[in-house]
Amino acid sequence: MGGREVNKDLQKERQKCTFDIAEMTTIFYGGPQKNFNRKKRDSVMLIGAEEFSKDIPDDYLSHKELYEDGIKKSVAIFSLVRQMQREGFTSISDYRDALSGLLGSAVLRDGSAIALHYLMFIPAIMNQGNEEQQTQWLPRAWDFNILGSYAQTELGHGTFIRGLETTATYDPATKEFILNTPTFSSYKWWAGGLGQTVNYCIVVAQLHTKGECHGIHSFIVQVRDEETHLPLPGVKIGEIGPKLGLNAVNNGFLGLNNVRIPRTQMLMKHAQVLEDGTYVKSRNSKLNYGAMVFVRVVIVFDMINYLIRAITIAVRYSAVRRQSQLKEGEPEVQILDYIMQRHRLFIGIAASHAYRIIGSKLWDTFHDVQEQLVGGNLDRLPELHALACCLKAVCTSDITAIVENCRRACGGHGYMRSSNLPTLYGMVTAACTYEGENNVLLLQTARFLVKTWQQIDKQELTPTVSYLKTANVFADKWVNSVDGIIHGLQVVAAGKIKSCVENMKKRLDSGMCYEDAWNTTSVQLVAAAEAHCRVIIISTFHEEVSRLLPTVSELLRPVLEQLVELYAVYWALEKLSDLLLYTAIEKKDVESLQYWYEELLREIRPNAVGLVDAFDIPDIMLNSTLGAYDGRVYERLMEEALKSPLNAEPVNSSFHKHLKPFMQGKL
Amino acid sequence: MGGREVNKDLQKERQKCTFDIAEMTTIFYGGPQKNFNRKKRDSVMLIGAEEFSKDIPDDYLSHKELYEDGIKKSVAIFSLVRQMQREGFTSISDYRDALSGLLGSAVLRDGSAIALHYLMFIPAIMNQGNEEQQTQWLPRAWDFNILGSYAQTELGHGTFIRGLETTATYDPATKEFILNTPTFSSYKWWAGGLGQTVNYCIVVAQLHTKGECHGIHSFIVQVRDEETHLPLPGVKIGEIGPKLGLNAVNNGFLGLNNVRIPRTQMLMKHAQVLEDGTYVKSRNSKLNYGAMVFVRVVIVFDMINYLIRAITIAVRYSAVRRQSQLKEGEPEVQILDYIMQRHRLFIGIAASHAYRIIGSKLWDTFHDVQEQLVGGNLDRLPELHALACCLKAVCTSDITAIVENCRRACGGHGYMRSSNLPTLYGMVTAACTYEGENNVLLLQTARFLVKTWQQIDKQELTPTVSYLKTANVFADKWVNSVDGIIHGLQVVAAGKIKSCVENMKKRLDSGMCYEDAWNTTSVQLVAAAEAHCRVIIISTFHEEVSRLLPTVSELLRPVLEQLVELYAVYWALEKLSDLLLYTAIEKKDVESLQYWYEELLREIRPNAVGLVDAFDIPDIMLNSTLGAYDGRVYERLMEEALKSPLNAEPVNSSFHKHLKPFMQGKL
Repeated sequence: MGGREVNKDLQKERQKCTFDIAEMTTIFYGGPQKNFNRKKRDSVMLIGAEEFSKDIPDDYLSHKELYEDGIKKSVAIFSLVRQMQREGFTSISDYRDALSGLLGSAVLRDGSAIALHYLMFIPAIMNQGNEEQQTQWLPRAWDFNILGSYAQTELGHGTFIRGLETTATYDPATKEFILNTPTFSSYKWWAGGLGQTVNYCIVVAQLHTKGECHGIHSFIVQVRDEETHLPLPGVKIGEIGPKLGLNAVNNGFLGLNNVRIPRTQMLMKHAQVLEDGTYVKSRNSKLNYGAMVFVRVVIVFDMINYLIRAITIAVRYSAVRRQSQLKEGEPEVQILDYIMQRHRLFIGIAASHAYRIIGSKLWDTFHDVQEQLVGGNLDRLPELHALACCLKAVCTSDITAIVENCRRACGGHGYMRSSNLPTLYGMVTAACTYEGENNVLLLQTARFLVKTWQQIDKQELTPTVSYLKTANVFADKWVNSVDGIIHGLQVVAAGKIKSCVENMKKRLDSGMCYEDAWNTTSVQLVAAAEAHCRVIIISTFHEEVSRLLPTVSELLRPVLEQLVELYAVYWALEKLSDLLLYTAIEKKDVESLQYWYEELLREIRPNAVGLVDAFDIPDIMLNSTLGAYDGRVYERLMEEALKSPLNAEPVNSSFHKHLKPFMQGKL
Repeated sequence: MGGREVNKDLQKERQKCTFDIAEMTTIFYGGPQKNFNRKKRDSVMLIGAEEFSKDIPDDYLSHKELYEDGIKKSVAIFSLVRQMQREGFTSISDYRDALSGLLGSAVLRDGSAIALHYLMFIPAIMNQGNEEQQTQWLPRAWDFNILGSYAQTELGHGTFIRGLETTATYDPATKEFILNTPTFSSYKWWAGGLGQTVNYCIVVAQLHTKGECHGIHSFIVQVRDEETHLPLPGVKIGEIGPKLGLNAVNNGFLGLNNVRIPRTQMLMKHAQVLEDGTYVKSRNSKLNYGAMVFVRVVIVFDMINYLIRAITIAVRYSAVRRQSQLKEGEPEVQILDYIMQRHRLFIGIAASHAYRIIGSKLWDTFHDVQEQLVGGNLDRLPELHALACCLKAVCTSDITAIVENCRRACGGHGYMRSSNLPTLYGMVTAACTYEGENNVLLLQTARFLVKTWQQIDKQELTPTVSYLKTANVFADKWVNSVDGIIHGLQVVAAGKIKSCVENMKKRLDSGMCYEDAWNTTSVQLVAAAEAHCRVIIISTFHEEVSRLLPTVSELLRPVLEQLVELYAVYWALEKLSDLLLYTAIEKKDVESLQYWYEELLREIRPNAVGLVDAFDIPDIMLNSTLGAYDGRVYERLMEEALKSPLNAEPVNSSFHKHLKPFMQGKL
């Protein structure tokens, strides 16, 4: 499509933009160095992508073809990863970022069966394997000589991992573990790549030795022969079938029947089983929290990748699409001129920046705490865990709602798979469930908050909850400013936590046991955790942007400020019932909030296209008929439609076989 | 799967049920006669369904195969329809209901390419064709000798039909219309079955005669040869490609290049073009509103069909699924015992009843007004139109949210296509966009409300808005009862409409033109229309159930009352900020509302499974591994997975072709 003219409305939008787009891009991606790395990395990956851009779109393929096509593409992409590795990219997060950029793109649109090897198999060995095990397994894994998956979830158990039923029983006679999935519901289910792709797998199982069960541990299990790829004896393996999305991931099931592995294939960095079967406890069981926090931070970053694509597609389309006259006799207007459309979309732009900033902050905090952990200091781990839980939950569910709004904002054309919006939705909504179902995670944060509240006068509070002390003390007169909103939301969060604690107490006093009281209060507990999370997101966004402002050009400053204001005001209005219940806000304040919000929708309007251009997503990664840089929406829709195999023949065979006899009354 | 044992937890749930399920079924479907018809109709359709139940699930098929498979199944099903027709089913609504029952089921899971023939082509000829035209076209259409579609939407125009670009220019010399799609954006796009299936199509085009344009009219255009099925000269036709869902519908595009049709193929019941090209206006241009209202009522009913499936699946699964211990050492609990789960699901049960009742009411009102129309009385048409607009919008968006909640409430397994929840979601979310985008529809209702408000003292108000007079006069002390909530929401709706009118006035006074003031106020206008709609739904639900109560058995009464209460309290809590802003509700009232809500979740719990059993959906229509009557969830998940063609071979060909060379470093 190169060289064709850009849609005139988009051109005009770009001319209207008041700030330097490249400067915004650099800020968004965390500074010049990080942005440079991103661009370099993306450009390497795009070489791999080019190759496939002329293939038939995978939406036309059968489930089986989609898998086969996905393997072909994954192999090409991971060959590039291997090459980059040799050229000096060294940290998993580099690859993770690179991969995440590709997932959902034209190349790995529906996920990859090899991704989990990188994202779970290797990290698990790094985090849970001892030095010997790392020496033994990592080089081959880094080089892709073996491919692994990570199998924890079973048909019958996801959230409650203590309830997993797969067993690994130590046999001191042979120095082996014997692995079994003793029941139907203990079949492993969901592990990415496990179906037809990997030959190794980390299996999470209940460890039994010397007649005792020591809870769940991780084991490296070979599942297929390295030469023939045939399943090994005792291994029942396959894929779990089609899903809402991610259909190239080859999620699999695994049944194990007396499968024996050497003792040394239990990952033993923490706990160990000695040759005689003696179980040696982990020195610190809390260290595993680190890995869970890591994964959740990474999910937030991944989801931002999909969010910025969806919002780029929807905003560009809304600038190109003209529909209805606002005034009789005038030309039809760009749908971006409808206030309802801005209401739907602009929050997505602001949220992209907010989540990027809170994500980076969480990432830095994670590294600080990691260092403290190494030094033996576990003090901040519960806070960090609580934070990661609620951020994962709130970001994934917000982003899912925004992506869905983006799709609907594109009307019927957003329902076309060629818009890429349905696929993006499939990717983000999955994240509401995996790695901790969102409500379950919010309840974990709530547990931390309730505990913090109960000790509020007894100890110093860690940074992210220290506001609870001040917000608890006074609820001032309402002020319509970002600081005012943040303070208001702090009062709300504190008020909600307090109310949960009181309700719990009432229930306990009436004779309920703690667990039932907790369960009965859970609708409110979830809301309290969300309120806390919202405080953290908005205040961090505000602080970090304020810190940045002196360093950016004058033209960019108001734009960044508008985004912070929009995010704050939007959420103040969304959570109005809370503000009305817990703060001094009055009807006239609400009216001026609404007015402020409408003003912001007006102010951001001329920069809307510039703001999404600043996300700097190459067309091949957007992979959208509606969102391409040139805005040639209708031409692309038609070009994509013409690729349909159904359109390759003037008459489909089913006419002669079924339709005609039916129409002539012969059926 | 016949004869296998029912899951024990489900058995227990059914034993706990306090009311007679069959009685509830009869009530839900509108009485013994209607329920009998439904059962009879379903049983005929199921004969057709049985035949295909052993086929490979269509999720494994390619886009092209899915179409071909869909034609095979559609032909089988519509042969039954034709047969039923001959046996005395006569009204379109009978078929519509029957079809709607099948769409999304095991048979027509992804829609049907023939459905639009029935749902739009035939009705359009009936409503817009004159007697001669009906005589000429209907018998062949009823008999499926010809198959038609309905093409209105173009690539560039959906919502704004006045902007359609397709032209039909009358040529008096030959007494023909010449049809053209003169621009790229005027290609017809979306019409169901248009791609490869139909041979006729109603085309909506701008009528030009004697050098004047008379706006859009409908024309019967033959697009394919009846014998060969080849596209006719000047016709460029094909399918538009894959979508989020409904992929068996064969939505198509259509380009017309000087296609000539006889003058008599313009549908002329209302407006006409005489032989010499003279245009004769329609006597009443408002009559077309009737058809739009009809379609929107029908959409509400369709969507309820999908809602009750989703909620049946999610509730049964939640009774079968056990996860986590509430108390240490005790068995894992049914997830239906988590309050958060009930919070997510029970509103779906209540909503099913609420929407069924308001749907029937709207249907009856529609028929009343139709009769008045025939008698020349158009007084209630604007009200009915406004009502249908907001009900379509609110029901489809509520149902979409509930179906999505049902899916997420089933965790990872809900993401499996075999749960049927992703497919159901695809069907309901589409309805938020088609036949009037929801925000656009709400703005139409808002226009009616604003107009009503401005004349509130000048004239008697029609029934659905008469509350605006009383709600406007006083805002009492808050009362926590269903009546109290309804009154509160009436005050809210009135307050919101009033506030819109005031804001509009302020803007007009400040010099804005009406259209800009309207646009700037649109976020609030949409909210006002939704508030109005909520009043109508809740008050109608309450009234109709109260009317029913004396006629039902004693055991069922409290259950029906609980559903009304749940619906009212849920929405009071959802719209709390409105109540706090507009009514006298206080913090302690809110707390007791919350308590009431939690009580209802507790009271409804033992009947949850009974309540979804009462929707009486045969397994073959549910088409879900998670929702089947026997609750054998894990077995069914595995059985479905084993049908995957990928699982039919021990090693996939891509291993040798791509994976192995890559793993051995040869790529």
